[in-house]
Amino acid sequence: MFTFSCPVSFSITCSSSNGNIQNHGDYRVNINVNGSSCTRRPIKHHTLLNEVDVKEGSTSLSAIQFLENGHISEEKIRQRIPRQKQLVDPYRQGLITERGVGYKQTVVVRSYEVGPDKTATLESLLNLFQETALNHVWMSGLLSNGFGATHGMMRNNLIWVVSRMHVQIDHYPIWGEVIEIDTWVGASGKNGMRRDWVIRSQASGSTYARATSTWVMMNEQTRRLSKMPDEVRDEISPWFIQKQAINEAVPDKIVKLDDKAKHVNSDLKPKRSDLDMNQHVNNVKYVRWMLETIPDKFLERHQLSSIILEYRRECGSSEVVQSLCQPDEDESFANGVQQNLLTNKVLVGGNGRLGSPDINVLTYGYTHLLQTQNEEIVRGRTRWNRKICTGL
Amino acid sequence: MFTFSCPVSFSITCSSSNGNIQNHGDYRVNINVNGSSCTRRPIKHHTLLNEVDVKEGSTSLSAIQFLENGHISEEKIRQRIPRQKQLVDPYRQGLITERGVGYKQTVVVRSYEVGPDKTATLESLLNLFQETALNHVWMSGLLSNGFGATHGMMRNNLIWVVSRMHVQIDHYPIWGEVIEIDTWVGASGKNGMRRDWVIRSQASGSTYARATSTWVMMNEQTRRLSKMPDEVRDEISPWFIQKQAINEAVPDKIVKLDDKAKHVNSDLKPKRSDLDMNQHVNNVKYVRWMLETIPDKFLERHQLSSIILEYRRECGSSEVVQSLCQPDEDESFANGVQQNLLTNKVLVGGNGRLGSPDINVLTYGYTHLLQTQNEEIVRGRTRWNRKICTGL
Repeated sequence: MFTFSCPVSFSITCSSSNGNIQNHGDYRVNINVNGSSCTRRPIKHHTLLNEVDVKEGSTSLSAIQFLENGHISEEKIRQRIPRQKQLVDPYRQGLITERGVGYKQTVVVRSYEVGPDKTATLESLLNLFQETALNHVWMSGLLSNGFGATHGMMRNNLIWVVSRMHVQIDHYPIWGEVIEIDTWVGASGKNGMRRDWVIRSQASGSTYARATSTWVMMNEQTRRLSKMPDEVRDEISPWFIQKQAINEAVPDKIVKLDDKAKHVNSDLKPKRSDLDMNQHVNNVKYVRWMLETIPDKFLERHQLSSIILEYRRECGSSEVVQSLCQPDEDESFANGVQQNLLTNKVLVGGNGRLGSPDINVLTYGYTHLLQTQNEEIVRGRTRWNRKICTGL
Repeated sequence: MFTFSCPVSFSITCSSSNGNIQNHGDYRVNINVNGSSCTRRPIKHHTLLNEVDVKEGSTSLSAIQFLENGHISEEKIRQRIPRQKQLVDPYRQGLITERGVGYKQTVVVRSYEVGPDKTATLESLLNLFQETALNHVWMSGLLSNGFGATHGMMRNNLIWVVSRMHVQIDHYPIWGEVIEIDTWVGASGKNGMRRDWVIRSQASGSTYARATSTWVMMNEQTRRLSKMPDEVRDEISPWFIQKQAINEAVPDKIVKLDDKAKHVNSDLKPKRSDLDMNQHVNNVKYVRWMLETIPDKFLERHQLSSIILEYRRECGSSEVVQSLCQPDEDESFANGVQQNLLTNKVLVGGNGRLGSPDINVLTYGYTHLLQTQNEEIVRGRTRWNRKICTGL
């Protein structure tokens, strides 16, 4: 199991004079900065109003929120986080959709988010999934602090951890492209939550990518999984939508690799820049370690069309990681793919896709494992198409 | 010298029927995708109009631009790049300022752009500098293709290369913070260009960071530096502003380190994900290599306040890099810093700063070098303050 570097897994400790967790009022938030604790002071109202007034043509006054005793959180002003549910966030170009429970954000693919082929990297898309999920939660008004857990979760010392992620990419957005990312949540069994995303071209509306993820609750102190308390279900279930980005009637199972795997990268050590706000190795680094284990020659000629990640446990900053990967024996997948003897091509059956399947696309697969001294961190499955460059 | 992973250094090859470079009309752009060349076809007008029409409530029609013979570039529609100068870019939240020649973009610090201490990383700021420079150039209308060089530069086979970069950071923006980035260009000697940036808090207007960079022209074929042709000067000089983000009357000189340097990281190999659109190691990776060579214990307790980079040559994907760094002997800088014997603190003299200097701030310095088999890639100088956490 892994605490995904995502808003819903961040934890903060709030202490008040009576020692209880409290979400409003003149609280001080103890934030652990690189291992040394420091206190961020709430700042008096008038100080900030003066600062804000200086700014010409600023709309900032409308965004100012007050804590109950008249103090104002400078952090909130700077972050422009609403304390109540809001429908539009002009700064993040986000808006609430789906009759009040979904979220859509317009994003431009930036120059540093693309690879040498000038299309968005998988890492960039994963980053944008994280960012839009966060912004959705912030706009929901469920949270008073901006860091993740709902009020009910904080009262129960619970945090979200992601257990699975599945991304399908039909078209990679290009450098400078304007895309729209929709995200929403749904139920996953009795105690879990599903979060889905769809990326579309803003110009044409056509779907480029889809993703789904599964989340469960963990007690922050004991690090054990927890049932969803009724008060938390009451908070979040009004936000659930049944719609699914990827229809996974029978989810793919990922076999566990062992030392016989064809490609192995050992001695992978997290760097400081690989750590997220939770002091754990971030999700994107996992994917990078997985993909870097695939031979360069393969990567040059192929484009990832899907990835499934199954998180087993979180990886700390001092651990040494091994990345294993194994190509599918016949370079095709057991499920959803058939060998076409006449054309000598592997056909994608469109299994698990909402959109129209790509027929006659050559596809290859790899199974992945990241581990530390035989303790699993993440299992992975990737599918790849031959790069075809006809038009865009 | 190094072709910075920045818009103004990107190169494309346009071939027309007569073999000349041409910027308009039914051209095909040969884009090198991971070493294998492919042709992107211009797409017929009606095809795209139909696609665009499908989208409900889209403003996309206004953004459609036509090539001279009636063909339309799908890439342009998807990227929303104007072919004429425009004053506002709603997608990128950018606008032209400074009486038509500067550029300002509003940006939210995203969750994946911050480090474990929840403030934007230096890498993220460098990325945003690159992105805003690019968007400035795109909005200027100087370019027909979106990739970088002006018409005059393309006619002369010239590309921009960055020779120097200097960043000063007084306050790191926090996770979710709304910031404004101003950027503009100016003359640098007879044949160079300066590009500056200022980052401000959108809420208070106070300045967080400043940066300046120097650019020269290189012949793309011969890889030799070039004088600025008159026609290029005529194109770009109307955009020059005299204002400087950092007043560098006497720029710091960076000594060359040798094998006696205190900290050395060898065998650094670029990964695929470290390459930019130009197939060279990106600028951010250089900085990461430099900073990773500084001992962790130092990094935990200090925050970078400034960095100067002097680029000597570009680094290809197959090179093996060595990163050297050396702390200043007395943990102070020779220039701009004095030892205060009474307080036993090193005082920053405010040298080179436009804003008010921070007095009584403990500061430390490192000299850096990245090289391949004794051939220099980048020299660097960093300054650091002790982390102090009083309020935000």
